[in-house]
Amino acid sequence: MTIPAALDALDQVLGQRLSRSKPDLDQHAASETWFAAAPPDAVAYPQDTDEVSALMAICAQHDCPVIGWGAGTSLEGQAQAFSGGVVVDFRHMDKVLEINAEDMDVRVQPGITREALNTELRATGLFFPVDPGANASLGGMAMTRASGTTAVRYGTMRDNVLGMEVVLADGRVIRTGTRARKSSAGYDLTGLMVGSEGTLGLVTELTLRLQGQPEAITAAVCAFPDMGAAVGAVIEVIQTGLPMARIEFVDAAMARIFNAASGADMPETPHLMVEFHGSAGGVQEQAKAFGDIVRDHGATGFDWATRPEDRNRLWEMRHRAHWSTLASAPGKRALVTDICVPISALAQAVEETAADIAASPVTGPILGHVGDGNFHAILLFDPADAEELATVKDLSHRMATRALAMGGTCTGEHGIGVGKLGYMQAEHGEAWAVMGALKAALDPGNILNPGKLVPQGG
Amino acid sequence: MTIPAALDALDQVLGQRLSRSKPDLDQHAASETWFAAAPPDAVAYPQDTDEVSALMAICAQHDCPVIGWGAGTSLEGQAQAFSGGVVVDFRHMDKVLEINAEDMDVRVQPGITREALNTELRATGLFFPVDPGANASLGGMAMTRASGTTAVRYGTMRDNVLGMEVVLADGRVIRTGTRARKSSAGYDLTGLMVGSEGTLGLVTELTLRLQGQPEAITAAVCAFPDMGAAVGAVIEVIQTGLPMARIEFVDAAMARIFNAASGADMPETPHLMVEFHGSAGGVQEQAKAFGDIVRDHGATGFDWATRPEDRNRLWEMRHRAHWSTLASAPGKRALVTDICVPISALAQAVEETAADIAASPVTGPILGHVGDGNFHAILLFDPADAEELATVKDLSHRMATRALAMGGTCTGEHGIGVGKLGYMQAEHGEAWAVMGALKAALDPGNILNPGKLVPQGG
Repeated sequence: MTIPAALDALDQVLGQRLSRSKPDLDQHAASETWFAAAPPDAVAYPQDTDEVSALMAICAQHDCPVIGWGAGTSLEGQAQAFSGGVVVDFRHMDKVLEINAEDMDVRVQPGITREALNTELRATGLFFPVDPGANASLGGMAMTRASGTTAVRYGTMRDNVLGMEVVLADGRVIRTGTRARKSSAGYDLTGLMVGSEGTLGLVTELTLRLQGQPEAITAAVCAFPDMGAAVGAVIEVIQTGLPMARIEFVDAAMARIFNAASGADMPETPHLMVEFHGSAGGVQEQAKAFGDIVRDHGATGFDWATRPEDRNRLWEMRHRAHWSTLASAPGKRALVTDICVPISALAQAVEETAADIAASPVTGPILGHVGDGNFHAILLFDPADAEELATVKDLSHRMATRALAMGGTCTGEHGIGVGKLGYMQAEHGEAWAVMGALKAALDPGNILNPGKLVPQGG
Repeated sequence: MTIPAALDALDQVLGQRLSRSKPDLDQHAASETWFAAAPPDAVAYPQDTDEVSALMAICAQHDCPVIGWGAGTSLEGQAQAFSGGVVVDFRHMDKVLEINAEDMDVRVQPGITREALNTELRATGLFFPVDPGANASLGGMAMTRASGTTAVRYGTMRDNVLGMEVVLADGRVIRTGTRARKSSAGYDLTGLMVGSEGTLGLVTELTLRLQGQPEAITAAVCAFPDMGAAVGAVIEVIQTGLPMARIEFVDAAMARIFNAASGADMPETPHLMVEFHGSAGGVQEQAKAFGDIVRDHGATGFDWATRPEDRNRLWEMRHRAHWSTLASAPGKRALVTDICVPISALAQAVEETAADIAASPVTGPILGHVGDGNFHAILLFDPADAEELATVKDLSHRMATRALAMGGTCTGEHGIGVGKLGYMQAEHGEAWAVMGALKAALDPGNILNPGKLVPQGG
């Protein structure tokens, strides 16, 4: 065995910061979705880049798998140690290292969560806009190319990471990118690392773009008679170029759950939740234009929330969708899946998915970041019932293949991990082999998050 | 020799579409800047992807260099055949293949120029925003990660290429990306290819994001008492978050040349040229806010051009800066260089560059896309005067090292080619070796644009 030898060597370097205790292993064994627990052999808690580099050199020498861990909120098994090895938990590397208010950027360690970052930024008038819902770590968000409710305005992690410090599979430490807003100086290694799910290196620092807190914000939720009307309204709003900061769809099942969980009083029909950021005059103009369009599509019952507490209540309810759905069905677990399609295919994709779920024996609210063509189903199943698990897996499978048939992608923001590995060949064809070649070039021993994202056993 | 064997085999496949005529070779030997002519052994004019793939397989077999050629407007020698081989000119692959107006995307062949594309799009109400000034080909723009005057609002080629078809070094054809607006499905191969300068593959198709033509546009030019005032105004405007579509700086020397070339009547001091896109109310609000800020910094003499012909005259003058500068000094050539720095360093970078040029015997107007921290110097020299060439090279060298010392990049948009190869180690350190490893993984025979971008002879 090579892993025990690696752990012995790591003990020398990390001491107390390498744990093999059962609670630690168990805590890092599970994911938030349906994958079986997969405990690592040890959990490392490095305190700086040098320790990560030393750890990696040892693991390379002993062929020991290395899996990064941020907040444990990934949804496709990205942080699970299915081949054993060492999970590297970045909780102690969670500092803001440097705020450059004039340049609107910030340098952070990977373990900081997005809520903690925005709390630290509050006094600067700046904020980090990417918001996947979960209070994920910035390292994890970068590595899964996360996005969420605000991507329609501010982009995904792809657009908001200016540079990184990365520890490679052999322990070398590289810096990618600069603090300049753009560059044509060589391959975009930052872009290659973002979304690589820890298979090419572990990120130990990130330089992030920040945004100025908008002068004015207004948000609203409105009801539609049916799904087609809601999605039709979204498409028209996008095409008029209205700069929405968020545009979220929830179906009737989700509205019902919100009513139960948050004491909301929503008609049990599809809804859109929207937010505009800008100058006072700008958001007013945008809200009016939005209202005119959606009313033509049958929207009713909305008014504009400009007070922070009203907006916070709205988005808090949206962010808790996952947990509220679980709470609505005690004893159930959730398979949360996501696809992204061209906007022109969105109505059909949502309607076919809804019909599929309605024809099945399970419950599964649909919701999503429809401004990007991205939506989710939260498919509930009884973990003791193999048939229900098979049903929700099949529904998820049909969503992914539907997305591919429509020219879309099998995941807009949750990533591949192990859960979506089966769609990579269909989505990318020969380009998936190219991903494998890049992985082999940078991690010839395949120690970095083995079993994820790239072709296996090639 | 292996190249002659490759050419014999290519003759069989391409027939008339492989040229070894002296005019063809000469036309593909030169660049627009100071590099010596480097004629290829042949020029290929493929008509489809299959021909590019067949060409590549033959060149791989015979170790024959392959260099892509779009419009020949690159500025760092990217398209020159310094090691001989075959230049692949995409002039016959210049079609719009598919416009998806509802999804606001378009699929094109790489040889189409940005002006031809926008002409074809005119009736759709959509446009492709990236505008590097030169009427470059879209393939070339992607491969140099071009940007230009509108990047401050719409992003660079990095942000506007959704997907590609690429012919790899062994002749395999891959597709990167999908038509979905975002994806977390594996490594971002589109992002890896954009900016790779033809060293990883030849692009044979691109899917591009489009923008809706704005309802209202307004533009203005205003004069400043000195460079510091102009740059200070830019920084303040950026920090207030005004959504500028363009914000261009020109120095006094450039204003003087504009007056001579375009019959403008600009005071011979630094200027800013700005444009806003949006709703009628929005651009009015933004123009007012902009005016208030820049007047506090001493701006004078501007009014707002809302008529298309007035705006076109303004940007035409700006776009012709390169040619007007050459015309101002008959017999001279230009070394055009570009750097990009964090906004907080912009004033110092521009002022030190201007002082450097002023202290030298040569002329070199400074201008740039200052909203991104990116600026250029057009350094004039007499091609027969070795000392002048040495002087302008030294000025350019000092700009690049200054940018790196300030946390910036040695090129914001012109790329590396051979001209900036000497700064890659200093800018990227060990990450440059990683670029070399990626190159070796995808092009083990080093046939794709050899001598450019990656470490040489490693």
